[in-house]
Amino acid sequence: MAELQPSSQPAGRPTLDELVEKVLGSYQSDPRIQHIDASFLPSRDRAIDVLDRLRELVFPGFYGRQKLTNENIRAHVSDMIESLRVALERQVEDALRYSENLRDEGRGDACEQCATKAKEITDAFFMRLPEVRIILALDVEAAFAGDPAATNTDEAVFCYPGVYAVFVYRVAHELFKLGVPLLPRIWTEHAHGMVGIDIHPGATIGRSFFIDHGTGVVIGETAEIGSRVKLYQGVTIGAMSFAKDERGELIRGTKRHPTIEDDVVIYAGATILGGNTIVGKGSVIGANVFLTKSVPPGHRVTMKPPELKFRSADGNGMRGQ
Amino acid sequence: MAELQPSSQPAGRPTLDELVEKVLGSYQSDPRIQHIDASFLPSRDRAIDVLDRLRELVFPGFYGRQKLTNENIRAHVSDMIESLRVALERQVEDALRYSENLRDEGRGDACEQCATKAKEITDAFFMRLPEVRIILALDVEAAFAGDPAATNTDEAVFCYPGVYAVFVYRVAHELFKLGVPLLPRIWTEHAHGMVGIDIHPGATIGRSFFIDHGTGVVIGETAEIGSRVKLYQGVTIGAMSFAKDERGELIRGTKRHPTIEDDVVIYAGATILGGNTIVGKGSVIGANVFLTKSVPPGHRVTMKPPELKFRSADGNGMRGQ
Amino acid sequence: MAELQPSSQPAGRPTLDELVEKVLGSYQSDPRIQHIDASFLPSRDRAIDVLDRLRELVFPGFYGRQKLTNENIRAHVSDMIESLRVALERQVEDALRYSENLRDEGRGDACEQCATKAKEITDAFFMRLPEVRIILALDVEAAFAGDPAATNTDEAVFCYPGVYAVFVYRVAHELFKLGVPLLPRIWTEHAHGMVGIDIHPGATIGRSFFIDHGTGVVIGETAEIGSRVKLYQGVTIGAMSFAKDERGELIRGTKRHPTIEDDVVIYAGATILGGNTIVGKGSVIGANVFLTKSVPPGHRVTMKPPELKFRSADGNGMRGQ
Repeated sequence: MAELQPSSQPAGRPTLDELVEKVLGSYQSDPRIQHIDASFLPSRDRAIDVLDRLRELVFPGFYGRQKLTNENIRAHVSDMIESLRVALERQVEDALRYSENLRDEGRGDACEQCATKAKEITDAFFMRLPEVRIILALDVEAAFAGDPAATNTDEAVFCYPGVYAVFVYRVAHELFKLGVPLLPRIWTEHAHGMVGIDIHPGATIGRSFFIDHGTGVVIGETAEIGSRVKLYQGVTIGAMSFAKDERGELIRGTKRHPTIEDDVVIYAGATILGGNTIVGKGSVIGANVFLTKSVPPGHRVTMKPPELKFRSADGNGMRGQ
Repeated sequence: MAELQPSSQPAGRPTLDELVEKVLGSYQSDPRIQHIDASFLPSRDRAIDVLDRLRELVFPGFYGRQKLTNENIRAHVSDMIESLRVALERQVEDALRYSENLRDEGRGDACEQCATKAKEITDAFFMRLPEVRIILALDVEAAFAGDPAATNTDEAVFCYPGVYAVFVYRVAHELFKLGVPLLPRIWTEHAHGMVGIDIHPGATIGRSFFIDHGTGVVIGETAEIGSRVKLYQGVTIGAMSFAKDERGELIRGTKRHPTIEDDVVIYAGATILGGNTIVGKGSVIGANVFLTKSVPPGHRVTMKPPELKFRSADGNGMRGQ
Repeated sequence: MAELQPSSQPAGRPTLDELVEKVLGSYQSDPRIQHIDASFLPSRDRAIDVLDRLRELVFPGFYGRQKLTNENIRAHVSDMIESLRVALERQVEDALRYSENLRDEGRGDACEQCATKAKEITDAFFMRLPEVRIILALDVEAAFAGDPAATNTDEAVFCYPGVYAVFVYRVAHELFKLGVPLLPRIWTEHAHGMVGIDIHPGATIGRSFFIDHGTGVVIGETAEIGSRVKLYQGVTIGAMSFAKDERGELIRGTKRHPTIEDDVVIYAGATILGGNTIVGKGSVIGANVFLTKSVPPGHRVTMKPPELKFRSADGNGMRGQ
């Protein structure tokens, strides 16, 4: 770190106006990272507020308002859905108009079906919530069943980063399937920041899914994961390399990530790459395995651990190792 | 992502009542992830608020109120302890009643000693705080002594994720030893989310403990770690495999995680597994080592690094490598 | 977890005064982790508030206030800079005085040039902002160009942890170069907590820098990284071992971290260590490579993957593998 030098020249301070001009000038000269006069842009803060309230609705009594009873629950749920519906619809509509503007500036403003579409998507999302809750209950059971340190399923809901990341993925995936741009990714990347688990909302994941510990997990956009799959921290289900088109730009949208069949367990730090890689039903992938080819069902893949060197303080090898 | 299709059928929107019914129905049909009519459930938000205020009490002047002087400090500490004592006691009592209800529904309501026990635990916790502060001061010193990028101990308190995770573990471990359910785990998993370091509150960790960088560290429930131990990012001190009982369910509560003796250093990405694995006093475990057997004291274990392949752009191997 | 035992002795509760005395006593007996009567200490909360508002200024329309138009933008920017200038100057001045006090208690109070210096640093920082915005726009473009899952650059600004971490590093690095103590590290460690990417503010990083996924990345204080470099999750650019002086204390401030030249790609989990290690221009470092020596330009380094063992459920090896 630089030494603190006594200041030699007492330069005149730039005025506020000078600083403002400089910053405004940089907005005008470089439009890439500003949104001024952008009619429609979803709000990250509001999108995350919707997500937080959805969690309260999905896990009643755990978050937000406590002491819910059979007497007050109907009024409470009604209030929540009423306000959530408006808030979500607004974000979805902005996201749709924003997306239309991306294709053709001004098209978002003129998008007449955007408002209708946003209503339909929001309704469809809420109609799916009961099913999403059933799936999440199975995920929570899988968390308890799979972790000897868990004392009950409540602890998993309350505390487990893996359960939080899977909750966010489940609701984001619903919006993703309904064709909502941007919002699903804002949600899953928020979860990524919160708990270090990066699940793309486009990934397909079956029932009873559990990620233990979880920090560093990456699950790519086109990954397909079956039911009753269990992952540990640091597992990557990723792309091997990126195909480019004739202009040298990345080709987007092809299947780049592996397929993991039912009942697979993948231990910490394992890396599984490539759109053609299939891990067959019931297989177990050991810690730190680096895998770029398929594994048939019912197999156990372990890394021949790199040889260890043991040296005592006096420089000799360790006996018996 | 799906194309935005013009909506074909302008379906009638589901009414608010219909959506409310669907969600309420899902609450009733699946009790696993709801707490309605649950008398006692600790509040995650309030538990974390207590944790934040404890940090202010433990590191006065660093967090929360600034400009503490010898004149105002007594009144400030008195105010803090007075309100913290009430808040912690409440959470502890709810956690105790909740835990009784888990064993036998309704037992929590009738638990007469739960209130008394919560008072005793809270008092015992506060009586332990001075000792906890001494231990944390040693942890902070270890952080400064162990990191050449640290410029002073204040920087470690202010900035270091490892120091934050160890603070949370230290206070959570006190509650854990006093038999408080759920709360300690809520605290440590909150820290896990905040800084990516996952220390189970049941782990035993000696003095002058330092985790550098820290993202991805996992320390299991039954790990035993001595004094003056230093870990780097991505280190796992974990379980090898999980024993199951005759019904195929996980056996919980046995020693499943390693013992790390005094003065051990474990470099980034190393994985040490198994309840019978002991790393002897003063040993050093190299980066990325995968270890499932014991190491005698005073040894240095390194991985024979996997052979590297160097290829130049023209396809030839690199000379001299 | 300990069983809940009925309490045997109904001990008298310690009074509030007793608890207060115990805690105050621990403050007095151990000055290491308290700041009472410390005249000048930057406030972590205020420092992070400044950072959040800087993000709004740097990426207008994305965060904070929305619906910015060419009509209201000047007034908005003027308001923001006016208040940010005061807030940043205050934190910088406190940091400078704090640092002087560290060298010699009381010197901070007497530091006459600290106020002047803080003004100069704050002005210099704001004068640099337009240039920082250009650099960040290139970083955002690199994020879009390098990730097939990205649908546009806005998504990268909104969602990508790597873009957030690089933004924080860029502004922290400016303060670092201007000689501000403590604040830059508070900022980058806040980002580290938020997204699991640990970039020391002292590191030197060229243009068009992209970190994909990012969790677990560590970039050390003296690392030098060229332009158009791309990193994936879990990459460490770190120190090999720490030199100690004749008193056994760490030597701080020497170049301990590698140099990465232009156009290098480093895949997930790779570890590159040592102040003399240079990765030459255009080279590619494969996943999980552990590297402690230099690589000439234009080379591709991959790990010979550890041999895998495939075993079917009936105990036989897998055919054809």
